[in-house]
Amino acid sequence: MKNHVKIAVLMGSDSDLPNLRGIFSILDEFKLKYSVRVISAHRTPDIAAHFAKTAKENGYEVIICAAGMAAHLAGVIASHTIIPVIGIPMPCPPFDGLDSLLSTVQMPPGIPVATVTAGKAGAKNAALYAIQILALNDDDLTKKLIRFRAVQKEKVILADQDIRNKI
Amino acid sequence: MKNHVKIAVLMGSDSDLPNLRGIFSILDEFKLKYSVRVISAHRTPDIAAHFAKTAKENGYEVIICAAGMAAHLAGVIASHTIIPVIGIPMPCPPFDGLDSLLSTVQMPPGIPVATVTAGKAGAKNAALYAIQILALNDDDLTKKLIRFRAVQKEKVILADQDIRNKI
Amino acid sequence: MKNHVKIAVLMGSDSDLPNLRGIFSILDEFKLKYSVRVISAHRTPDIAAHFAKTAKENGYEVIICAAGMAAHLAGVIASHTIIPVIGIPMPCPPFDGLDSLLSTVQMPPGIPVATVTAGKAGAKNAALYAIQILALNDDDLTKKLIRFRAVQKEKVILADQDIRNKI
Amino acid sequence: MKNHVKIAVLMGSDSDLPNLRGIFSILDEFKLKYSVRVISAHRTPDIAAHFAKTAKENGYEVIICAAGMAAHLAGVIASHTIIPVIGIPMPCPPFDGLDSLLSTVQMPPGIPVATVTAGKAGAKNAALYAIQILALNDDDLTKKLIRFRAVQKEKVILADQDIRNKI
Amino acid sequence: MKNHVKIAVLMGSDSDLPNLRGIFSILDEFKLKYSVRVISAHRTPDIAAHFAKTAKENGYEVIICAAGMAAHLAGVIASHTIIPVIGIPMPCPPFDGLDSLLSTVQMPPGIPVATVTAGKAGAKNAALYAIQILALNDDDLTKKLIRFRAVQKEKVILADQDIRNKI
Amino acid sequence: MKNHVKIAVLMGSDSDLPNLRGIFSILDEFKLKYSVRVISAHRTPDIAAHFAKTAKENGYEVIICAAGMAAHLAGVIASHTIIPVIGIPMPCPPFDGLDSLLSTVQMPPGIPVATVTAGKAGAKNAALYAIQILALNDDDLTKKLIRFRAVQKEKVILADQDIRNKI
Amino acid sequence: MKNHVKIAVLMGSDSDLPNLRGIFSILDEFKLKYSVRVISAHRTPDIAAHFAKTAKENGYEVIICAAGMAAHLAGVIASHTIIPVIGIPMPCPPFDGLDSLLSTVQMPPGIPVATVTAGKAGAKNAALYAIQILALNDDDLTKKLIRFRAVQKEKVILADQDIRNKI
Amino acid sequence: MKNHVKIAVLMGSDSDLPNLRGIFSILDEFKLKYSVRVISAHRTPDIAAHFAKTAKENGYEVIICAAGMAAHLAGVIASHTIIPVIGIPMPCPPFDGLDSLLSTVQMPPGIPVATVTAGKAGAKNAALYAIQILALNDDDLTKKLIRFRAVQKEKVILADQDIRNKI
Repeated sequence: MKNHVKIAVLMGSDSDLPNLRGIFSILDEFKLKYSVRVISAHRTPDIAAHFAKTAKENGYEVIICAAGMAAHLAGVIASHTIIPVIGIPMPCPPFDGLDSLLSTVQMPPGIPVATVTAGKAGAKNAALYAIQILALNDDDLTKKLIRFRAVQKEKVILADQDIRNKI
Repeated sequence: MKNHVKIAVLMGSDSDLPNLRGIFSILDEFKLKYSVRVISAHRTPDIAAHFAKTAKENGYEVIICAAGMAAHLAGVIASHTIIPVIGIPMPCPPFDGLDSLLSTVQMPPGIPVATVTAGKAGAKNAALYAIQILALNDDDLTKKLIRFRAVQKEKVILADQDIRNKI
Repeated sequence: MKNHVKIAVLMGSDSDLPNLRGIFSILDEFKLKYSVRVISAHRTPDIAAHFAKTAKENGYEVIICAAGMAAHLAGVIASHTIIPVIGIPMPCPPFDGLDSLLSTVQMPPGIPVATVTAGKAGAKNAALYAIQILALNDDDLTKKLIRFRAVQKEKVILADQDIRNKI
Repeated sequence: MKNHVKIAVLMGSDSDLPNLRGIFSILDEFKLKYSVRVISAHRTPDIAAHFAKTAKENGYEVIICAAGMAAHLAGVIASHTIIPVIGIPMPCPPFDGLDSLLSTVQMPPGIPVATVTAGKAGAKNAALYAIQILALNDDDLTKKLIRFRAVQKEKVILADQDIRNKI
Repeated sequence: MKNHVKIAVLMGSDSDLPNLRGIFSILDEFKLKYSVRVISAHRTPDIAAHFAKTAKENGYEVIICAAGMAAHLAGVIASHTIIPVIGIPMPCPPFDGLDSLLSTVQMPPGIPVATVTAGKAGAKNAALYAIQILALNDDDLTKKLIRFRAVQKEKVILADQDIRNKI
Repeated sequence: MKNHVKIAVLMGSDSDLPNLRGIFSILDEFKLKYSVRVISAHRTPDIAAHFAKTAKENGYEVIICAAGMAAHLAGVIASHTIIPVIGIPMPCPPFDGLDSLLSTVQMPPGIPVATVTAGKAGAKNAALYAIQILALNDDDLTKKLIRFRAVQKEKVILADQDIRNKI
Repeated sequence: MKNHVKIAVLMGSDSDLPNLRGIFSILDEFKLKYSVRVISAHRTPDIAAHFAKTAKENGYEVIICAAGMAAHLAGVIASHTIIPVIGIPMPCPPFDGLDSLLSTVQMPPGIPVATVTAGKAGAKNAALYAIQILALNDDDLTKKLIRFRAVQKEKVILADQDIRNKI
Repeated sequence: MKNHVKIAVLMGSDSDLPNLRGIFSILDEFKLKYSVRVISAHRTPDIAAHFAKTAKENGYEVIICAAGMAAHLAGVIASHTIIPVIGIPMPCPPFDGLDSLLSTVQMPPGIPVATVTAGKAGAKNAALYAIQILALNDDDLTKKLIRFRAVQKEKVILADQDIRNKI
């Protein structure tokens, strides 16, 4: 079952898409397949529940949820599945993500959501964390992650070598 | 259908009970029947969904939801019913209700939750707001509300007359 | 008395208008009449008090109040009437609505205000909540609300079907 | 008209009294008469409006208002009078005065409230600020204020001399 | 001594000027003279201290201080004079005035600063509050203030009459 | 390699222990072995780096890190390993965990940390999330998790049945 | 001039003393002499200015300032001297040090204050930072600091060895 | 060893450069040499540790660290050296530096970081504070600092003289 789609990416609204590009670029870079869904915790709650309840049998192993404001999407999904759920707090006016962060991370005891950085940085980090989870049983992903970290390190080193010229 | 139970009070955990006494004392004072339920948005999401979906046919007209932390209860209930939902943000450590307030009030457009004061003051206010809604079609409740306000005013006036002696 | 105007929309300043369009588009969509007023809690307090005191006899059943900063409008109105008041916290610089939210929602026990989302999302939600209250005694509105929710759900489903093409 | 009562102290609830002792001890120390009232912006709005409207003709020259939560008292009073109003944000659970501070200080343009420190320190400072205003036309008060500052300075100097022994 | 300059306006930096125009337009409207100074609590502390210490003998009766960030200007001035000081918290990036507000309003007991709204609205309110203080002993100012309030009320009433056309 | 220790629990200081009991009770309930370490990101940074660098070869599959204030422990560990790291923000005076939360969750793009609820609730949730990750390849854990959720649900249902007696 | 007192510890009020014990225990442990003063930025501003202006000629090389609320002490001292100033934000009710932190750290460009952790942890850190500065030209202090760090590390290692027994 | 490079400027990412120009303009103005490095606490942690561990033997006497979000750079560096570390919290969306500030300043007891103003103002202040430290043993720098302060004061005085023309 190695080739099936293991990662689902859910967003509360397609208006979140511009901030989520980082998820897809990372997953594409790692050559991982993923499902992308627009599912609203509040406007399509039954679809959300159904998705979560059938996620395991459908082969998903990690679910990334991005939502803003009273960001319940990750929590709603997590309440219906034991698959690891990763929440990305999306910044929205006027509270710029403080509401999203607290709504996502402050889950009551018993139903955990793993929250990453708010906004665009979180998109990338959610994808990487999903990969880190999958890599626990996938040596190929492990190697790719190690390489990714090495490349990332190289970029900082290059920036370091360059910085004197920019001042 | 005047005598059936129109008000439901839901709390995310029975540990919230001490802060919610104000709901019951107000509803009792107005001689209104109410259902009280412990329903967790995250630990019993199907019960929550079922309660909300059948709330209207069961004769409920207002649903009060009290929850803390990533307080999704009011939002989950509201997503499954068109009955007015009133949310009370319950303060919990360590963020003392800022998380609960933002999780309750910042609902995305389309699924409103009416949020009242955080904590004990909100318990009383949620009950009163529920009564104000029901009073729109109940002259007896209207009279009681007007009397309640008058009594409340009298208490302030008495405190005003007394204050000089306390200084 | 079915055709009279039951909903009043009050704003603290006409500068809030651009953020409040959502109220009117929702109410128009539901073919509901409404009064719109610019009433300042601080600059026209007597007009505010008079409006609130006569609101019930004038046939109003719900009052929506939008204000920013030390947003007292909803509270002032609520202090003079037992009609349900819905408060929309308007974001203003420099605190972007945190002041408005806390000033609107943190009403002391005895005089409830139902607070909805801050800003534009709150405009839509205030209108919908007002309709949910009126729908308790109006089967036609109930049907429209159910249809509104269905349409809203359909839009999410369509966005969901479309999302793959956008990535 | 030198001996009439020029300072009014209003509190939203007599439960605020323990935090307000500093007002009275300062005013007593300066041998100034004052009226003390319990007036609620929300529960006795007409009394608040009437008090404010008649404050000037009743000889008041400064009004100190202490209130908590959605602390509208100072704003309501200020909206009905041109006498200087001083607001003290009272801390209340769960938001410990952040709500009170923002509700008091963030008055819209046109109706100013002068806000002092939140809580007990604010009680003392409100009284002193009221005296500073009155001292503009009262040489005796001016002298007392100068003496008060000197004594206050002496206390710090004494504490400074003592501190080595306490370590 | 009726015609001397009674109001001083201090700003921590001339970069604050654009946000302070409201002070001058109000004071000009009331035909009040004022001194304007750029004095930095931190960069010119001795000038600040000297200004404050000589303010009374120079005939000032109110000092308005506008500053941002760790906004100490109002506090420094207040520590050297018993003339009423009004502080305007100026919003600056990145904390947009929360730092300025808390630095201005949270004065320790003994040295009060009267804080008004943060930013542009505060500029207007600071000027009006200064006038309210001076009006206590100036019947002409009192009349002007009453007229100002009336005009301000008229503007809201006009906006109210107009609002229907704008929707 | 099924029986080796796969979960490491790191805390920045043993003073955090009382808030972390939930981790151990959950892991014990699931009969999972775990290592517990006191490692300070700042006082023993080399030990932290060494632990993280060798974590994978030592067979760890998830690392739970609990730290307070400028809570860097999870971030430091994550920077040296590709094993999933779960961060628990520990509340400390005076900022009660807001500092810990932001320091833990706001990781820059490239090095993700999965943050759970702040404080005691987070201890339980961190353990459960670790188990959810391990359960992806462990049917026995999967069954236990499903049972855990069922028991948890039963407790809410029992509390629900009991609540009427408590009011 | 090696043996003179190089470190001054200033506190805004002797009520801060209990939270500052860590300064003295660290300085005593390093056998460093220090002056301790109670100087209020607001109540004894001239003493504060004089202390700062003469600090350099009096041989001081670092000044530690602890203050709460609108914590201006460090800023006032820094405005009058070019000696490094270290600020400790003291937590006070009701804002628990958020006001103190922002008032201390957000100094305008030109007059820096080095801010350490709020509260008791900051007391220790302020002393250590002062020592780190002095150690730049004192080999003995350098050695002591290295030893202090080693001991500190040992304590964590011991706690690490002990932790298993405590669970 | 007077002419070697004593100041290191580290930034977590070269995207921070535009906000850090103030560091370089100040250090250039004081004719001080400095090293500039891009070192990421999370992406190049070993380089960070190595830099810090060898900083002293490489002759550095102050290290300025600028980082955003969960800003661990200053803390990581400080954990590996006893040289004074100055942290500049860089503002990033969406939390605009509140995360950076708390992550930088709230260091646990034992490993101090001296935090300056967030953002651009902090860049200038970090450089000035570094110079103030170095000036303790450099009479030339002391003179330059005194001159810098004088010039800075002159600029305020000039702005003060000019302000009347700008209103």
